[in-house]
Amino acid sequence: MADSIYADYPPNLSAAQQEYLVTTIKDWAIQNGLAVRPAPTALPANADPNRVLATNAPVTIFPSPFPGSCFEEAKALQTIYNQLYAAITCNEDWLGKIIEDLVDVDDFVANLWKTHLEVKKEGYVQNLSLGLFRSDYMAHVNSNGPPSLKQVEFNTISSSFGGLSALVRSLHEELLTSPSGSPISYPPHPLFDSNLPPENTAVETLSGGLAAAHTAYGSSKSSPALPLCILFVVQEGERNLFDQLALSKRLSQVHKIPVFRLPSNRILDDTLIPSSNPSRPLVYKPPHSPDTAFEVTTVYLRAYYAPDEYKSSRDWEARTHMERSAAIKCPTVLNQLSGCKKIQQVLAEPTGPDHLTSFMKDISPALIERLRETFAPQYDLSTDGQGRELALNPETAMKHVLKPQREGGGNNIYKSEIPGFLRSIPEKDWKGWVLMELINPAPNATNVALRNDGEVLRGNVISELGVYGTILWNADGNILHNDQGGWLLRTKGKEVNEGGVAAGFSSLDSILLY
Amino acid sequence: MADSIYADYPPNLSAAQQEYLVTTIKDWAIQNGLAVRPAPTALPANADPNRVLATNAPVTIFPSPFPGSCFEEAKALQTIYNQLYAAITCNEDWLGKIIEDLVDVDDFVANLWKTHLEVKKEGYVQNLSLGLFRSDYMAHVNSNGPPSLKQVEFNTISSSFGGLSALVRSLHEELLTSPSGSPISYPPHPLFDSNLPPENTAVETLSGGLAAAHTAYGSSKSSPALPLCILFVVQEGERNLFDQLALSKRLSQVHKIPVFRLPSNRILDDTLIPSSNPSRPLVYKPPHSPDTAFEVTTVYLRAYYAPDEYKSSRDWEARTHMERSAAIKCPTVLNQLSGCKKIQQVLAEPTGPDHLTSFMKDISPALIERLRETFAPQYDLSTDGQGRELALNPETAMKHVLKPQREGGGNNIYKSEIPGFLRSIPEKDWKGWVLMELINPAPNATNVALRNDGEVLRGNVISELGVYGTILWNADGNILHNDQGGWLLRTKGKEVNEGGVAAGFSSLDSILLY
Repeated sequence: MADSIYADYPPNLSAAQQEYLVTTIKDWAIQNGLAVRPAPTALPANADPNRVLATNAPVTIFPSPFPGSCFEEAKALQTIYNQLYAAITCNEDWLGKIIEDLVDVDDFVANLWKTHLEVKKEGYVQNLSLGLFRSDYMAHVNSNGPPSLKQVEFNTISSSFGGLSALVRSLHEELLTSPSGSPISYPPHPLFDSNLPPENTAVETLSGGLAAAHTAYGSSKSSPALPLCILFVVQEGERNLFDQLALSKRLSQVHKIPVFRLPSNRILDDTLIPSSNPSRPLVYKPPHSPDTAFEVTTVYLRAYYAPDEYKSSRDWEARTHMERSAAIKCPTVLNQLSGCKKIQQVLAEPTGPDHLTSFMKDISPALIERLRETFAPQYDLSTDGQGRELALNPETAMKHVLKPQREGGGNNIYKSEIPGFLRSIPEKDWKGWVLMELINPAPNATNVALRNDGEVLRGNVISELGVYGTILWNADGNILHNDQGGWLLRTKGKEVNEGGVAAGFSSLDSILLY
Repeated sequence: MADSIYADYPPNLSAAQQEYLVTTIKDWAIQNGLAVRPAPTALPANADPNRVLATNAPVTIFPSPFPGSCFEEAKALQTIYNQLYAAITCNEDWLGKIIEDLVDVDDFVANLWKTHLEVKKEGYVQNLSLGLFRSDYMAHVNSNGPPSLKQVEFNTISSSFGGLSALVRSLHEELLTSPSGSPISYPPHPLFDSNLPPENTAVETLSGGLAAAHTAYGSSKSSPALPLCILFVVQEGERNLFDQLALSKRLSQVHKIPVFRLPSNRILDDTLIPSSNPSRPLVYKPPHSPDTAFEVTTVYLRAYYAPDEYKSSRDWEARTHMERSAAIKCPTVLNQLSGCKKIQQVLAEPTGPDHLTSFMKDISPALIERLRETFAPQYDLSTDGQGRELALNPETAMKHVLKPQREGGGNNIYKSEIPGFLRSIPEKDWKGWVLMELINPAPNATNVALRNDGEVLRGNVISELGVYGTILWNADGNILHNDQGGWLLRTKGKEVNEGGVAAGFSSLDSILLY
């Protein structure tokens, strides 16, 4: 089925059909905020000195078929995954043992861990943690039987594209149904008959998580009391800001919660923790209203997730400053560390201790097995054993990918290149890499992408499904809020192994279930 | 009051305040479709080959104070104005006499009139007309007493900015109220206390008019019957399309009416009137769906309003083609002609016949007087009389403006320049000009504008209020739908006497009533 569904999908487009769809999508995107800022390097110098220009986010022209069983399973497992990563974050001993082993090959992990230890030494004053997670999957084609859901990675920090993904769903829905009564935006295709992308509540779910944290924070710890707010810590010059604004808009309009955006390089300028207050409230002083101060209930990080964002010790100072404050962090340093590729490898190691069961004692064995089923086998390379055997044997290497543990630590290494690559680096660095069995997506999947420069590309694609979840828990492991909802389909041209959506190498997509 | 309200308005902005407001507005505009396409000439060559870029519409940073009495009066009179212009359009004799007098000085009017005569000769098949009007005013400062409402012009074709204007109102409302509970987006000012811009239902009102026409058209006149649609006839390369898309979005989503956009140069390619059908339905064949045909109930012109849009006889052919069809035109050629500056001059001539009363026999004399009060005196220059005396006398000329009857016929001539200008052109051409008593807006009105290239300008400004109305009537003068709602405030830098909003010389604004 996964093969055959693409035999005649998507339908061919005449020049007039393509022009209509491209024009409609370009205009719809700007009308509805499905937009990004163009990369300054994509424009001639001085074309936009005041940074006012915007363009459509890169999107697929058609929604992509996706197996309904895999989609439903991903949604069904999300709150369990939320719980698993909350439990890992609570278990500092278990987490620390793995992290400390990475310290000498991954200075980013080392610095995060140091930040945690520093705050721990002083003592944390906030025992609530908020996670806004996204679990990414592929539909793995099996030679016999239906496709199965396989996890690519689990994101515990800055899980993005919830805002734009919900808009892509609306765009595709509108194209599938317009004009009213006589839908002709797309050429006819059997898959379009009475079929719409499933609802996408990513914005509601993610902002609901932030609102739950804001409420759980309680009243102001300052005296006199200050008005409360949520702080979005963002990258300076962020180009994907409309994705973030979809969440802050809902927090403002529906939850009536003040939200401010703060570039990470302004944290130490515009926030403070009064030294006289042992509760350590994080106080935000908006530069545009110097007589006003807000107390931050929740710090939502859409920055500081990648090593290259920490340009100097000042960035680490800023991260520590937030971590030691009373604000609820989304995420804490520990929760960020729980999202390491190495952790996912340990969980997915086919042999060895049953970590899942020990982390989720209240979850039924059947459900834990379903969750385990989403793991592609992953192997440790730090010592002799199955991982090294599979990686160094040219025949078994063909079924694997080598992923750097370190964010920004290099590109993935595929198949036949694995043995040679490993032999080209010192053996002591092998533990910085994780070996993962390849997931096989539908080989003939095809779509048409509209890039953010307006170029149209048609070709073979690979799609990743992301499912959003949010969880609020305390250091004792008690869960105050655990929810899932909303999804992302990210579709990449097959020649592209890595690359962010905003860079134009991959597109935001939506789903038609089959 | 009109003077004093500006004594400390708008509040001064620190650099940080201005940066906050500019950033917030730029981002809000793209997130919410308060956008325009940049002029290709504003970008370096080849910066945007696929025309994907957009930018914020030019907007004021603050809403402008506007006298509540003038605003309420403009709204109260709009349905009467709708009725007046419907009645003028129905009175072909009266209208024709004025128009025929312009034929030798205004070839655009001459061609429109010829189009009407041509269709009349064959016989009209549609006796319904739709108007989407905008009456533009200034608040005229009186030395004694409160400001009064004075009409600048009445638009009967392509009345624009309803879609974007409603968004500017939402933008300013959000700035006035955010963050929730502690509004600090603007510096404090007494005018902001418990004051919000009045509601703006421009999108609902204008799309409601189009929907009323669509319904009144009745069932398909084709056999076999075709699905029905509304056609937006637009300019090729339109940069203000997001304004138009706000209306089509509502027609699609709320009224469930199919809407298509058709560039004027495609009319003769993509529509036809089957010669075998005496009802002359206008059939639209979407190029992107060659096997489908729709019957057009309503042609909404957002093109063909200016002389320079008729590049060849093919454009006049296309206009005639639509006019002779069974589609309801918004507007008809006659209704477009009723919006001539010359007609407004005849209505506003202080001496002479009481046209208003003869056109509106069912309207109370008191209401007619209130409408007449909105006229600034306007004079004919075709013959000797009061107009010529006022224009040629340097002293009285100082209180007047000379406006070309012809759209695109040149710039307005002001005050001391009037006598010399008139003497520099042949006397036979004087009837192509209208003399109008100057309206005096508040001299010290000030605002800050954010242009669509991101530049910020602060200075003295002049604001024009537009009020939207819509009316559907038949050739016998029976009114099927008559509604008003929604407004536009357009604010221009004082040095700018003319210029379109989209060109960046003037800004979309909203209102705080006082």
